[in-house]
Amino acid sequence: MTMGDSNPTIQTADEGAQRLLSHADTVRLEALSDGVIAVAITLLVLDLRVPELEPDQPLWNALTVNWPSYAAYVTSFLVIGILWINHHSLFRQIKYATRGLMLANLTFLMLVVAIPFVTSLVSKYLLEGNWNSKVAMATYDGLALAIALSITFLWAYVLRRPALLEPSVDVAAARKAFPQFSIGIAVYTVLIVLAFINPVIALAGTFGVALYYCFEHLPSGRSKPDEPDGKVL
Amino acid sequence: MTMGDSNPTIQTADEGAQRLLSHADTVRLEALSDGVIAVAITLLVLDLRVPELEPDQPLWNALTVNWPSYAAYVTSFLVIGILWINHHSLFRQIKYATRGLMLANLTFLMLVVAIPFVTSLVSKYLLEGNWNSKVAMATYDGLALAIALSITFLWAYVLRRPALLEPSVDVAAARKAFPQFSIGIAVYTVLIVLAFINPVIALAGTFGVALYYCFEHLPSGRSKPDEPDGKVL
Amino acid sequence: MTMGDSNPTIQTADEGAQRLLSHADTVRLEALSDGVIAVAITLLVLDLRVPELEPDQPLWNALTVNWPSYAAYVTSFLVIGILWINHHSLFRQIKYATRGLMLANLTFLMLVVAIPFVTSLVSKYLLEGNWNSKVAMATYDGLALAIALSITFLWAYVLRRPALLEPSVDVAAARKAFPQFSIGIAVYTVLIVLAFINPVIALAGTFGVALYYCFEHLPSGRSKPDEPDGKVL
Amino acid sequence: MTMGDSNPTIQTADEGAQRLLSHADTVRLEALSDGVIAVAITLLVLDLRVPELEPDQPLWNALTVNWPSYAAYVTSFLVIGILWINHHSLFRQIKYATRGLMLANLTFLMLVVAIPFVTSLVSKYLLEGNWNSKVAMATYDGLALAIALSITFLWAYVLRRPALLEPSVDVAAARKAFPQFSIGIAVYTVLIVLAFINPVIALAGTFGVALYYCFEHLPSGRSKPDEPDGKVL
Repeated sequence: MTMGDSNPTIQTADEGAQRLLSHADTVRLEALSDGVIAVAITLLVLDLRVPELEPDQPLWNALTVNWPSYAAYVTSFLVIGILWINHHSLFRQIKYATRGLMLANLTFLMLVVAIPFVTSLVSKYLLEGNWNSKVAMATYDGLALAIALSITFLWAYVLRRPALLEPSVDVAAARKAFPQFSIGIAVYTVLIVLAFINPVIALAGTFGVALYYCFEHLPSGRSKPDEPDGKVL
Repeated sequence: MTMGDSNPTIQTADEGAQRLLSHADTVRLEALSDGVIAVAITLLVLDLRVPELEPDQPLWNALTVNWPSYAAYVTSFLVIGILWINHHSLFRQIKYATRGLMLANLTFLMLVVAIPFVTSLVSKYLLEGNWNSKVAMATYDGLALAIALSITFLWAYVLRRPALLEPSVDVAAARKAFPQFSIGIAVYTVLIVLAFINPVIALAGTFGVALYYCFEHLPSGRSKPDEPDGKVL
Repeated sequence: MTMGDSNPTIQTADEGAQRLLSHADTVRLEALSDGVIAVAITLLVLDLRVPELEPDQPLWNALTVNWPSYAAYVTSFLVIGILWINHHSLFRQIKYATRGLMLANLTFLMLVVAIPFVTSLVSKYLLEGNWNSKVAMATYDGLALAIALSITFLWAYVLRRPALLEPSVDVAAARKAFPQFSIGIAVYTVLIVLAFINPVIALAGTFGVALYYCFEHLPSGRSKPDEPDGKVL
Repeated sequence: MTMGDSNPTIQTADEGAQRLLSHADTVRLEALSDGVIAVAITLLVLDLRVPELEPDQPLWNALTVNWPSYAAYVTSFLVIGILWINHHSLFRQIKYATRGLMLANLTFLMLVVAIPFVTSLVSKYLLEGNWNSKVAMATYDGLALAIALSITFLWAYVLRRPALLEPSVDVAAARKAFPQFSIGIAVYTVLIVLAFINPVIALAGTFGVALYYCFEHLPSGRSKPDEPDGKVL
């Protein structure tokens, strides 16, 4: 839907030395992000490992014993899916990019791409039943917290530079809704604490949060009284 | 073909609280799906493993002994290819998305991405000749069944919400054709049973079904008397 | 360039029962092919393995001893790159798809995706200096031959169904140029024989052929006297 | 933004035998490059390995000891991100392609795709504290140097063939700015030397250079007095 656009480079007075990049750049930034997220979500399959069996060991047992792998796989798939949706929802409201925004986005992607690693950690150590199970799950939720912080930072960065936003965005409403971002941060902090109490419940909680976010979503400035959040994914 | 579209967000009365997302979202949903499927199909190559040889062991023997790998690779490549075609065929008829549809699609993708895992399972255990061979092949066809169920659910979800469909779709015809989806479900159920009788024949059967679906395809509501199914992939 | 197209589904008399799919399908088929090829070319990096060192073993030696890996990596990168170019060149001349064409394309992709596997085989066995080196290199060139055959079949399939071609394609010229495809088939057959004589020279030859094809290319029906092959990649 | 373009194939007199490919080819070349770069940056996660623990070994220790992995991961992520930005910045100024340009681009991609390999090398050997640490880090910066050379070559190739450039590019300014490319080459040469003195500092330096380039960028011919470098990413 942006193909017909001209390719303007604007230089607003209040942005000073900060150069704005054209709309084409945000389209492309989003395309790269989509590609990276699609690959990261697919690499999760590498955490599903074919069991090495002892002689006479039944495969079915080995597969069922491996349930933390599947639980971690499903959770991470949902988490990355939701992150994709939210990332997309924010970027639809952004019209211009800056170098700072690109660096913030790269940081976000760097953290998302690490999800298959912490998934693997949880798959392997969740059932050890000792301190290591707790560390593995806390690392997982620690990464989720870092991602929540990075996306909050990215959105704060943009809200402080309204010239970057699509003209249709209601900046005042978006700023008013901004504190809702802190909910995600609080939730993942609680999950980190929970990981040290009971890592299995913390994994279930992480899954539940992702499922919840699948129907709820990040606040935006696009809400209109008669079509609440309609345009936001 | 959707580039010139405006980006409408509709809110139909009969959908109640359920928010419809814009057409741009289904385009993007499909792009993410395509990316994920392209990566998943390519990761199948990781199941083709270079043999580790004993001293004096001929490579050619080790390669030919490994034929279940190649058979599983070819079968899975065809299966994912057909799934891509069918997914695409359905999504071409969908104009608007909802959160529920997105979650259904994410579930579908989560199952498709697991195909390289069960392929690896079959490659490794098909020739063990004991119960494990049967479990491996039954797991493979079990995943295929789960995928068939997920795509059936997705399409049922859309057919119950005709406002999501492209206006050109003949909803009545699509609903009438819906029971044909149960054929896939029946076929994979039979293959699971067959896997417990003879896993090698079940693999051949799975390949045959995929090949058959390459020429036949899922029913749709686009059929017109004079150009039967012409627009459906 | 196809965005403004309408989405016609044609049904030509001489094609009989064979259903033609719309232009949008070939665009999408090409996009999936591009995605698969991009992933396959990138997975080649997995064949570059970090050496496991003995105590006191210098890393530099271990890296240089590993030169067949780098040679195979560079060769396969170039081979897949050229295949991408040629695939693209052919598909630009195809306007409509059929199920048969899609199956032919899937077969082509299935073979291309296997290139990282045979690359790994050559990396590991090229320097064994025995029969296994020859088998590894012959398997590599055997796959290259299979790919050449699959792309020849795909093009023959299309040339026999001129209704699938873009109207601008000169079918008679394309058919006249068709025998040039047999050159690639002959070249890879010779390389397979060469692999059994000297696998290192066969690898160098495979690289040389890919480099040659980077400047030369598959024949097409688009040639005009005053801009020879200008529109073909 | 190029969708509405016609698809001209030009043949300039001064290019002689060198065939120019159409604008559609550069669009597609860029799309393939984007796909390859997105996969390569995501494969970096494979260098983050789940530690294998001894009995009673705490996971937290094993994770923290592994810091060179994370440092190498973050550095490579940033390096590939910047390369993507710069590649994109250059290609936006290129309107037509030649076979030579395609080969130059393939060489660039071949080197970029190898980054996960050298990242793995640094992760594993950075802390050995002997000559191998130095070789690993020097190999990393050696690859970075090769990439800088390949992108310099690519740009020199284009500047010598101004017919390939977008009409809006100020060729004289671009040529005048060209020597700035040698800065990157000099920097990576210094880092290779530094790797042999202190590999850990060389890694920090490599990270610093990437961070610096995130805000600075390659020279271009698009600068206008009143919007300095505005259109260049």
